[in-house]
Amino acid sequence: VTGPGAPGDLAARVRGLIVDVPDFPRPGVLFRDIMPLFADAASLAAVVDHVVDSQRATGFDVVAGIEARGFLLAAPIAYAAGRGVIAIRKAGRLPGPTWSTPYDLEYGVGVLELQHAALRAGERVLLVDDVLATGGTLGAAVRLIEGAEATVTGIAVVVELSVFAGPKLLPVVVDSVVVL
Amino acid sequence: VTGPGAPGDLAARVRGLIVDVPDFPRPGVLFRDIMPLFADAASLAAVVDHVVDSQRATGFDVVAGIEARGFLLAAPIAYAAGRGVIAIRKAGRLPGPTWSTPYDLEYGVGVLELQHAALRAGERVLLVDDVLATGGTLGAAVRLIEGAEATVTGIAVVVELSVFAGPKLLPVVVDSVVVL
Repeated sequence: VTGPGAPGDLAARVRGLIVDVPDFPRPGVLFRDIMPLFADAASLAAVVDHVVDSQRATGFDVVAGIEARGFLLAAPIAYAAGRGVIAIRKAGRLPGPTWSTPYDLEYGVGVLELQHAALRAGERVLLVDDVLATGGTLGAAVRLIEGAEATVTGIAVVVELSVFAGPKLLPVVVDSVVVL
Repeated sequence: VTGPGAPGDLAARVRGLIVDVPDFPRPGVLFRDIMPLFADAASLAAVVDHVVDSQRATGFDVVAGIEARGFLLAAPIAYAAGRGVIAIRKAGRLPGPTWSTPYDLEYGVGVLELQHAALRAGERVLLVDDVLATGGTLGAAVRLIEGAEATVTGIAVVVELSVFAGPKLLPVVVDSVVVL
């Protein structure tokens, strides 16, 4: 599901900071490097504040970030909104009992995990990642959260890649700061 | 170098949220799980605000977080301080030209990387990670930052493990919220 997106000036600012890196991490892949956006204080603040504002009416109890770049956006959103942040990580990195779910990679299958202790039934979760492409990772994260009997109230990403149909495959409105 | 640490009430609050997980990720290792601290909104805010306050007098231009849990603390500190955040990551995950440096793991050697574009010469950097044990990872991060001709003005961690001599091996004062 596609949301209204960010105001044009914020989207233009973000777009201007993203660096295109051809053939990374593999030949034929065009990587969108958003690290310069995080390094720019005013842009980091503007993106975080935009997401907090856009999600305020819906409301959420906690922010879930997807490892690793998703952490860089999820944690300041949680701080700015007066909420905590929980981590959705690759297999084997979270201690204790976890929920886990597979997701499709370009070659093969990955596994994402969420600690049992991270969510209580009925909690309302804002899900955050850096880039939305096919929606495979975010879809797996939604399954983990719903498997814990919590609810995904919104999804926020910095960049949505329009060549894929990611938002159409997700059951929650996606707030993409910029669409490339 | 050891710093003054956090106020006693904050340290006690943080200590109460850390979950000890025996035999993770390997038999014989006692893992300190700090995810419950990040999940608690008031504690996340208190830790972030403490670090920002304690580093204010020294000052810094940018915050560097070490992958992956370090991102969860570095990014909200950057946001709260009105600064940007940069990433120090494991080999192969950052695109474009990078500095790299080896660091000792329990078995073998790892490599940390920093993008050339992330820092300018003379920038003042607050370095942030989740846990300080032997200081191997943080020491490597200091070398990367100094190799870029920038300066580490401070180091902040949530947990310092006193069984190791980590702070003694680092050239910068370490602000540890709690010492275990």
